Amino acid sequence: MTVIEPRSGTAFELRSGQQLQIIDIEGTQVSDLLAFNLDDTREALSNGRTFDYEETISLTTGNILWSNRSNAMLEIVADDVGTHDFLLTPCSKATFRHFYPDKPVHRGCFGNLAAALQPFGIEEDDLPCAFNVFMNVPVNGQTGRLSVEPPISKAGDMLTLRAKMDLVIGLTACSAYASNGGQFKPIGYRIR
Amino acid sequence: MTVIEPRSGTAFELRSGQQLQIIDIEGTQVSDLLAFNLDDTREALSNGRTFDYEETISLTTGNILWSNRSNAMLEIVADDVGTHDFLLTPCSKATFRHFYPDKPVHRGCFGNLAAALQPFGIEEDDLPCAFNVFMNVPVNGQTGRLSVEPPISKAGDMLTLRAKMDLVIGLTACSAYASNGGQFKPIGYRIR
Repeated sequence: MTVIEPRSGTAFELRSGQQLQIIDIEGTQVSDLLAFNLDDTREALSNGRTFDYEETISLTTGNILWSNRSNAMLEIVADDVGTHDFLLTPCSKATFRHFYPDKPVHRGCFGNLAAALQPFGIEEDDLPCAFNVFMNVPVNGQTGRLSVEPPISKAGDMLTLRAKMDLVIGLTACSAYASNGGQFKPIGYRIR
Repeated sequence: MTVIEPRSGTAFELRSGQQLQIIDIEGTQVSDLLAFNLDDTREALSNGRTFDYEETISLTTGNILWSNRSNAMLEIVADDVGTHDFLLTPCSKATFRHFYPDKPVHRGCFGNLAAALQPFGIEEDDLPCAFNVFMNVPVNGQTGRLSVEPPISKAGDMLTLRAKMDLVIGLTACSAYASNGGQFKPIGYRIR
């Protein structure tokens, strides 16, 4: 298992058919996931296409994560938790200033993803909404109001995705206070 | 009032401070809205940043639509309907094939927006999730399931937005069967 240190991120290739296992090593932690077509990184993960084709905002085992070009990128093949978020964008310096005006500004998962993906020729403006693994964002169906709650994931819980095309993956250990219950923990991953 | 003919789209500049009024001329019709920074079209509307800052998926009077760079793009200043969607991407040839396999393929709002925005140097892959004016997409807060229902807008109902920066706007009259109750109607707009 490779460990992503607290408040950091990484990027790597994931080939079609390979599985990516994301592990909440200590529990109650979030990992922001991005995916791009390795052969043409202008094709990227799309929350809107995914909500449309899967007809739900709650993605779990059996659901597919789709690209902006309507191609299947990743399939969720195992899920110990069942609660993830695909509504919210990764935190950035601007979101830290907005949500945590009294705390030190951090570049957040957005900055960590931008730095990790830069060697693949992917720029800040190319970053779409991330699939936020283990993130707990309940939505009130009546009012539309959402809130960011601590994850329900326990130590050792995993999410496994299978690549449906050759991909560049960006992956983080969450940096924001609200998303992980105020604790900054590592995230593990494994490619099989 | 300018009329967008059924199943078509247009694009135009909207200057900071100007108001854009979108009119459901006959009722029960949807209009997909995109916005880009006129001075740098890599800055675009972001559903994820908007859900994050507004803390809701239901946007109405007083809410702001945010960009991928965390800048305010548009403020909703009047809303006769109160039901709009920001979850789903505009329909494309691929979504027509997926959702309406027995019906003729149409390029949809996605194709109409891409064609209308092309003179501004905006390409297909640059199109983010649209703010789908008058679109009725209830979400079940328990299961996450969503459905596309006919709009509740009546003839003459309007949504008014104020530009918070100089913008390129893309705007359509919806082309898909489910979104507008199976009828293709025009959409009107007015700049003030």
